Amino acid sequence: MPEMMKCFVMHGIGRVGVMDKPIPRPGPSDAIIRTTAALICTSDTHTVAGAIGDRQGLTLGHEAVGVIHELGELAASSGLFQVGQRVAVNAITPCYACDNCQRGYPSQCGGMLGGWKFANLKDGSFAEYFHVNNAAANLAPIPDGLSDEQAAYCCDMLSTGFVGAERASIPIGGSVAIFSQGPVGLMATVGARLRGAGLVVGVESAPNRVALAMKYGCDVVVDFSKEDPVEAILKLTDGKGVDSAIEALGSAQTFAACVAVTRPGGAVSNIGYHGDGDSVPIPRVAWGVGMGDKTIHTALCPGGSERMGRLLRLIETGRVDPLALTTHRFSFDDIEKAFKMMQTKEDGMIKPLISFA
Amino acid sequence: MPEMMKCFVMHGIGRVGVMDKPIPRPGPSDAIIRTTAALICTSDTHTVAGAIGDRQGLTLGHEAVGVIHELGELAASSGLFQVGQRVAVNAITPCYACDNCQRGYPSQCGGMLGGWKFANLKDGSFAEYFHVNNAAANLAPIPDGLSDEQAAYCCDMLSTGFVGAERASIPIGGSVAIFSQGPVGLMATVGARLRGAGLVVGVESAPNRVALAMKYGCDVVVDFSKEDPVEAILKLTDGKGVDSAIEALGSAQTFAACVAVTRPGGAVSNIGYHGDGDSVPIPRVAWGVGMGDKTIHTALCPGGSERMGRLLRLIETGRVDPLALTTHRFSFDDIEKAFKMMQTKEDGMIKPLISFA
Amino acid sequence: MPEMMKCFVMHGIGRVGVMDKPIPRPGPSDAIIRTTAALICTSDTHTVAGAIGDRQGLTLGHEAVGVIHELGELAASSGLFQVGQRVAVNAITPCYACDNCQRGYPSQCGGMLGGWKFANLKDGSFAEYFHVNNAAANLAPIPDGLSDEQAAYCCDMLSTGFVGAERASIPIGGSVAIFSQGPVGLMATVGARLRGAGLVVGVESAPNRVALAMKYGCDVVVDFSKEDPVEAILKLTDGKGVDSAIEALGSAQTFAACVAVTRPGGAVSNIGYHGDGDSVPIPRVAWGVGMGDKTIHTALCPGGSERMGRLLRLIETGRVDPLALTTHRFSFDDIEKAFKMMQTKEDGMIKPLISFA
Amino acid sequence: MPEMMKCFVMHGIGRVGVMDKPIPRPGPSDAIIRTTAALICTSDTHTVAGAIGDRQGLTLGHEAVGVIHELGELAASSGLFQVGQRVAVNAITPCYACDNCQRGYPSQCGGMLGGWKFANLKDGSFAEYFHVNNAAANLAPIPDGLSDEQAAYCCDMLSTGFVGAERASIPIGGSVAIFSQGPVGLMATVGARLRGAGLVVGVESAPNRVALAMKYGCDVVVDFSKEDPVEAILKLTDGKGVDSAIEALGSAQTFAACVAVTRPGGAVSNIGYHGDGDSVPIPRVAWGVGMGDKTIHTALCPGGSERMGRLLRLIETGRVDPLALTTHRFSFDDIEKAFKMMQTKEDGMIKPLISFA
Repeated sequence: MPEMMKCFVMHGIGRVGVMDKPIPRPGPSDAIIRTTAALICTSDTHTVAGAIGDRQGLTLGHEAVGVIHELGELAASSGLFQVGQRVAVNAITPCYACDNCQRGYPSQCGGMLGGWKFANLKDGSFAEYFHVNNAAANLAPIPDGLSDEQAAYCCDMLSTGFVGAERASIPIGGSVAIFSQGPVGLMATVGARLRGAGLVVGVESAPNRVALAMKYGCDVVVDFSKEDPVEAILKLTDGKGVDSAIEALGSAQTFAACVAVTRPGGAVSNIGYHGDGDSVPIPRVAWGVGMGDKTIHTALCPGGSERMGRLLRLIETGRVDPLALTTHRFSFDDIEKAFKMMQTKEDGMIKPLISFA
Repeated sequence: MPEMMKCFVMHGIGRVGVMDKPIPRPGPSDAIIRTTAALICTSDTHTVAGAIGDRQGLTLGHEAVGVIHELGELAASSGLFQVGQRVAVNAITPCYACDNCQRGYPSQCGGMLGGWKFANLKDGSFAEYFHVNNAAANLAPIPDGLSDEQAAYCCDMLSTGFVGAERASIPIGGSVAIFSQGPVGLMATVGARLRGAGLVVGVESAPNRVALAMKYGCDVVVDFSKEDPVEAILKLTDGKGVDSAIEALGSAQTFAACVAVTRPGGAVSNIGYHGDGDSVPIPRVAWGVGMGDKTIHTALCPGGSERMGRLLRLIETGRVDPLALTTHRFSFDDIEKAFKMMQTKEDGMIKPLISFA
Repeated sequence: MPEMMKCFVMHGIGRVGVMDKPIPRPGPSDAIIRTTAALICTSDTHTVAGAIGDRQGLTLGHEAVGVIHELGELAASSGLFQVGQRVAVNAITPCYACDNCQRGYPSQCGGMLGGWKFANLKDGSFAEYFHVNNAAANLAPIPDGLSDEQAAYCCDMLSTGFVGAERASIPIGGSVAIFSQGPVGLMATVGARLRGAGLVVGVESAPNRVALAMKYGCDVVVDFSKEDPVEAILKLTDGKGVDSAIEALGSAQTFAACVAVTRPGGAVSNIGYHGDGDSVPIPRVAWGVGMGDKTIHTALCPGGSERMGRLLRLIETGRVDPLALTTHRFSFDDIEKAFKMMQTKEDGMIKPLISFA
Repeated sequence: MPEMMKCFVMHGIGRVGVMDKPIPRPGPSDAIIRTTAALICTSDTHTVAGAIGDRQGLTLGHEAVGVIHELGELAASSGLFQVGQRVAVNAITPCYACDNCQRGYPSQCGGMLGGWKFANLKDGSFAEYFHVNNAAANLAPIPDGLSDEQAAYCCDMLSTGFVGAERASIPIGGSVAIFSQGPVGLMATVGARLRGAGLVVGVESAPNRVALAMKYGCDVVVDFSKEDPVEAILKLTDGKGVDSAIEALGSAQTFAACVAVTRPGGAVSNIGYHGDGDSVPIPRVAWGVGMGDKTIHTALCPGGSERMGRLLRLIETGRVDPLALTTHRFSFDDIEKAFKMMQTKEDGMIKPLISFA
């Protein structure tokens, strides 16, 4: 009889709950992690709303850290890790062997978005234990000075927010607009500062997010509920537009605004998930009728232990402290309550931390 | 009394004709060229159809070569050029001093698409003489072994077609799809071969263009009138899609097809002019819901004497011979007839050469 | 009779002094600046020591700001500037038209290091007035909130230090070693932080420079007089080496150390001037016998008004305040005294500011 | 009792011979290949001369193709391959999981040059069977239309030669100098043409190599035994120097020449193995005293099935036929004779093919 564990799952579109499953066992290259801390992501709520179709009994969650519980034979013999060690695991866990991984696009492991395995191609990490494929490439040791909570922010929030800035081709001292200052947008703000932006303009209206945007490095926040953000940003840049715009929301409207506020030769960096409609329109004239030297980049949260090591280091050496994102705290027993608040973002929720006993 | 010259002009939307104007005089940094050979571009017909609004008496034309007739004082004292020398001048003539030029986007000189001055911000080159701003950066001497006709192809066709390939991030031995094999698409095909593509798939249906596509380096040409090009290209690449797709037509449909045939992590390179509609739609799912690591680049014909020198060299050392593009030849006296044929592309016209006595 | 001005000149190798010269007049594209503040650079002392050969009556200086005194006709008609406006001028003043400028290497304008015109190809800026070629591309307006002293640091210190970091291919959260923390090395430290380094290790022994290195963003400073910096840096990185090393001194020994501390696939970024010997040796084995995927970059202070605008903005928005570099202040009357102190760096001199009445 | 196989080994510095060893068995992720064709590399002779130290009974060889003989359990269950399938295996076989692999430098797998496992960290492929680690990432199926001999050239010659060109930042139509036209240099010549070079200058003196250099795409070959190649190349480029220089020999002298012939802002791409001396000197003045915007790249033969697929495709679609490199053919029984000829390059040997019954 396998040992059992509690899991927070999707029972079907719109339905969630707790169920028991066997504790997973590792294949030769894999690891099993005993979860200690996790974060709920807006994309978990998208999944439950049907973004990836109906799923029965799929364990949710992709932002989690923990302690190594068991290692497969190859993972153990690598000597890289030991049972009992604290590790962070990125939301995206590529194989690092397939064509797309070799090409430098591990998030597209095996096919489009295929690096996203947790709570998509296999069970996620809202469980007492979770399974990690290709442990050698996907387990990142947590430095001693960091809390589990801090480390958990590296799994998606820092990695996604920062890649938004990294792909935005920000020239040193350049200007950047970041549309929406949710948790990913806030980390894109930190990322823009880390890449040397000289002017960071956030777009947001919720007061607590505006306050965090200023804390995390925006020079100005434009309240889109009070003024047209495209006009406001053009005015802030003497009509030139910004060098780079980051879409951190996933709406057709903000995507179009990103193209519009970017100067010729600038870059639009999309990290928002676009869930609606057949297409996402590029505004034709603002795009220079297809000849304006504007580039549109996209990315899905880059994983891998090497990058995780760099993200953890940025917290360790004081470049960023993500803890201000934690607005609420719950024990794993109360995850359903936390999840329902995340669906509505009530009470100003930004990120809820889930602690495992 | 200034000396007069004949010019082929736009009299208003849909109306063209020949008129006399004074031979232009150079400012300190400028040059005046006596035209010897010119090519008509489809974009000249777009202009007459109203693409840049109504214009009265605007001289058309931006693909021309000739002989230096007069140099401004600074251009003369540079010692770089002499009156009587054969030179090619790119369609795009940036200032090379403004912010966008310094940023590395000279086609966006002074503002979006602002490097495009001929037949847009000033008179074009379908005239016995034409004016060139910033001569030091914009006049490219024609090597002795090249004909004026060959050199004229560097002004736009090679520069635009090749930049489509240069921006397509083609890995050595990679796969490329090129949508439409008009003169720019054909030169994009040459460009893709020059960047090391291992598989070049053209999309075209006109038989004479299909034949040229094979001559200029396509491995396969998909006839979109007989099969769905997206399906055909996916089949040719074992379902993976191509590393790079080049849009050389300027239609929303082919743009969407480019996104669809490009594999995750691949690049779409747009060089087609998009003239219609408020927006150009990106197919949402094929784009990886904004997270597929697909990049969309755009470009406007890069100018400058340094690049022109490299393009001329590629003809000189036998890498490409553009002359197969010349399907028709006219004297300047017959330019109106040539222009009308270009409007309809009748008689299989690809590029008509205009010779000046 | 031309109006005269005082200039601080090199009279020959090892000999300096003040002499009178006519106030210069602008060519059509040029500007004349009335100097308000200047900084002495170590490279001025190299010049006097013979680095560029013997010179008679060459005005020294290349870090200066001031007020527009006169504009050439083309510069005036551009409408970009007005007499009386405060401007900063980079040490490097390219033409932005020649082949190398078009290729994106304006510091190599017209030939190797040819963008360096002040106190090399023409008189420098240690004078009551100085001449600026190609004003449209080389004059950078100083924002109202900045002092002349702050702006003067953009002319060379920020531009050179930062380019050291920009060329170092620093991954976000990556590790960087910076050899020597003189004024350029200190600004490279700021640059490394601005590009997102997660660990910055300075190498320096002078206590006041060590203190500034910590202030400007080093996480650790290795005192090379007390321990071997290569060993120390390898130890700090668990034997892996750093992602990037910046050579900000110009010695064969530190260059070799940069190669040695850089991990495979990392980048060495050289901004130090190498003045001695026939060659600069790359340590063969540490270089991976020529196959270690280590890249060696070099740069000369990038100029241009667009970049200067970004550097000035970084001061304006509080990303960096260079004033801590000013250890001494002099009036222009006392520049010879300042210069002699700079030759020996006595009294802990880092940068001396020269004020013009 | 394990089954035995014949191997061609290094018995000690300067000593080679045939010995029997057990046929290797795969670990879970590995494969065993039955060899069908192999090529001897000059670096095999370096190894025997002591380049990596003394070795007793190390099987030599790293350029080989064959048929899958046995697959480990994970490799078999991947469904990517089948026993009996023809495959090519690159000389470099990274793990694709470690830090350096994740960083994009798989040739530096696990540490400097650590991707080079064959005949270095483990037995090579001059044996009836050889072992391949991480089969999923390292086995490349050979297309039906290609011979084993053609495919064998992808293992090192094409991959190394081409990466020399890929790292050389060749602008389209740019100029390239390639020092030495041995087999790697010849493939660098092909690579330079594949990246769009407008002028390719080879440096070579052996008449059969000169002839092959012209066949494979050089526009000019400079005979260094008759003229100074630096002077000759500067003359061919009107004194400007080339955009890119490729070092394909591994000598301090040719490396220095590469730096000297490269224009400011150009790239030196080193693919030669530097076996002698403590250091490889950069000529100081030609390097722009460390400020000439010249970049020095290095590389070790990039491996991986994805790249191998692109290299094989380039042969399949007729972009290159490497067979002209095969100057001699031997059966495996005669490999010692072939090896001794390779040590001296007697009889104009370029590459000897070894066929397995």
